[in-house]
Amino acid sequence: MKTNKQWRLAARPVGLFKDSDFEWREEPVPALQDGSVLVRNVYLSLDPTNKVWATMDSYMPAVAIGEVMRGGAIGAVEESRNPAFSPGDVVQGMLGWQLYAVMPGAAVTKLPKGVPMIAFMGLFGHIGLTAYFGLIDIGKPKEGETLVVSAAAGAVGSLVGQIGKIKGCRAVGLAGSDDKCKWIHEELGFDAAINYRKGNLIESLKRECPKGIDIYFDNVGGEILDAALALINLRARIPLCGMISQYTATGPVAGPANLANLISRRARIEGFLVTDYLPRAGEAIQEMSRWMQEGRLKFRTDVVNGLEQTPRAVNRLFEGTNMGKLVVKVSEEQ
Amino acid sequence: MKTNKQWRLAARPVGLFKDSDFEWREEPVPALQDGSVLVRNVYLSLDPTNKVWATMDSYMPAVAIGEVMRGGAIGAVEESRNPAFSPGDVVQGMLGWQLYAVMPGAAVTKLPKGVPMIAFMGLFGHIGLTAYFGLIDIGKPKEGETLVVSAAAGAVGSLVGQIGKIKGCRAVGLAGSDDKCKWIHEELGFDAAINYRKGNLIESLKRECPKGIDIYFDNVGGEILDAALALINLRARIPLCGMISQYTATGPVAGPANLANLISRRARIEGFLVTDYLPRAGEAIQEMSRWMQEGRLKFRTDVVNGLEQTPRAVNRLFEGTNMGKLVVKVSEEQ
Repeated sequence: MKTNKQWRLAARPVGLFKDSDFEWREEPVPALQDGSVLVRNVYLSLDPTNKVWATMDSYMPAVAIGEVMRGGAIGAVEESRNPAFSPGDVVQGMLGWQLYAVMPGAAVTKLPKGVPMIAFMGLFGHIGLTAYFGLIDIGKPKEGETLVVSAAAGAVGSLVGQIGKIKGCRAVGLAGSDDKCKWIHEELGFDAAINYRKGNLIESLKRECPKGIDIYFDNVGGEILDAALALINLRARIPLCGMISQYTATGPVAGPANLANLISRRARIEGFLVTDYLPRAGEAIQEMSRWMQEGRLKFRTDVVNGLEQTPRAVNRLFEGTNMGKLVVKVSEEQ
Repeated sequence: MKTNKQWRLAARPVGLFKDSDFEWREEPVPALQDGSVLVRNVYLSLDPTNKVWATMDSYMPAVAIGEVMRGGAIGAVEESRNPAFSPGDVVQGMLGWQLYAVMPGAAVTKLPKGVPMIAFMGLFGHIGLTAYFGLIDIGKPKEGETLVVSAAAGAVGSLVGQIGKIKGCRAVGLAGSDDKCKWIHEELGFDAAINYRKGNLIESLKRECPKGIDIYFDNVGGEILDAALALINLRARIPLCGMISQYTATGPVAGPANLANLISRRARIEGFLVTDYLPRAGEAIQEMSRWMQEGRLKFRTDVVNGLEQTPRAVNRLFEGTNMGKLVVKVSEEQ
């Protein structure tokens, strides 16, 4: 009989996650029911939205206290009582912060073999699709426009800037350290990178966006959104992907003071969720694969080893100490 | 020789307009240059945006200190040195807060005769077009949806609710007095009216919008926008027409705390200006004329007599004491 290892939610987090917000549990894996599969998790995705899930009802109900913490993951099928799956299949789904997940077949998606599993944590998974559709569908980039991206050294942001370049935009990235700025500018080819923790942000944006801002792809909200709103051009688009600056707030957070600029600039802020685009995943993956093969699209993962590290690792998203996609390696691919 | 009477901007207003922000000037009307017309102003439009113009550069440069205050108006041509205009023609343009305006022909638009001049202060002018295109083009109302309008007893808001009803929406209006609420509910046919100064706004909105909010037509910004954001449905649209709650603020104003709801609801806030829709004015005027003749669209003007009243009258917009379109009658139509 297999022993599962799990992180269960023990308390509603306030501010950053604390160790006491989770409980480590080791317990036997239950027997499979008809129609279910047993998955051994390999890569667990850590995303800013984890904080939202642990805190409140949103586009999904909050994780209940006592439940295994929700998390997107990729794993290998070890046992199957569902005819659509066989041991060795690679699947993804909301497998949770645990070593083994028992899932109904309908709740997981089979992934093609022959592609490294980790790729589905990046270009070929929710991250790649978020960057692609958020920029292309909501941002509508046009040749010669200026694109500003926040959290530009993060998983989504690093792709958004590169896709913007491919579409002919001037790509300006905001990140929280000189190392991150160096990476996105020198390695990823952003036209400019601004360390938002240094100097006056509006002045820096003015300097790097001499023609103003046509698209601001927002991952953070707060003061950076406000600064971008100050400099938007006529008919600017602001795809709202996330508001990480607010996910660890402990009280109500004021919105941007410059919202009225939307009127005079006839501009728009529009929220989106990647789940709406899953039916169109094929077109994005096809195009991004080609760009990757041509060397025009790079992606970095920041892999933490060991499920037991998860509660502390997830805070790195809010502290800004990850570079690229933050992933926990729960077990070996094979 | 004719004597002009003018209100010139004397100081940048802070908060509400003060008498000392303007200077009353009487001076001779200058001789006409070739290509110009002399217009006697009849109706001067007072609009929330007047405060923006007097305060700062926006979609137009700020009015310079010492200049005649900017204002949209309708008047009669008294003299013309432009072959396109004859005495007696009715024209509109940025004629300013004055009795006489000397304008190049290109800066005024001739209006059809036989229609009461005051109609161009309402349905057939910038107010009607703002309501029509803001709701139809940005709000995209669909049968059965719930539309919430702020400043619903104001010029634009009162039309927006009625047009929403014609398009099959449930129309809920927010206004600042019981009299206003009574008017929009009983006379204009809004399904419900909420006095936002009474009780808990979110609870009132929940009660009157049992299916949530699909369109929030925003004229005010601030706390009311925040409350509406709390209750928006999936794919809600928020046409941003104005932010009157902020035009008299004396410092930076916090934006809405609930902005992150745009993400989970995949919703959009979009600013617009009526000037972009002038080329399509014909379609709006044709449709609104028909609705008016069918008795489905009503409009009220709130007329103040005498140019000398203007600086105090304009504050009524920010105090919320006007009902319908606020207009100054500067001289007689004939």
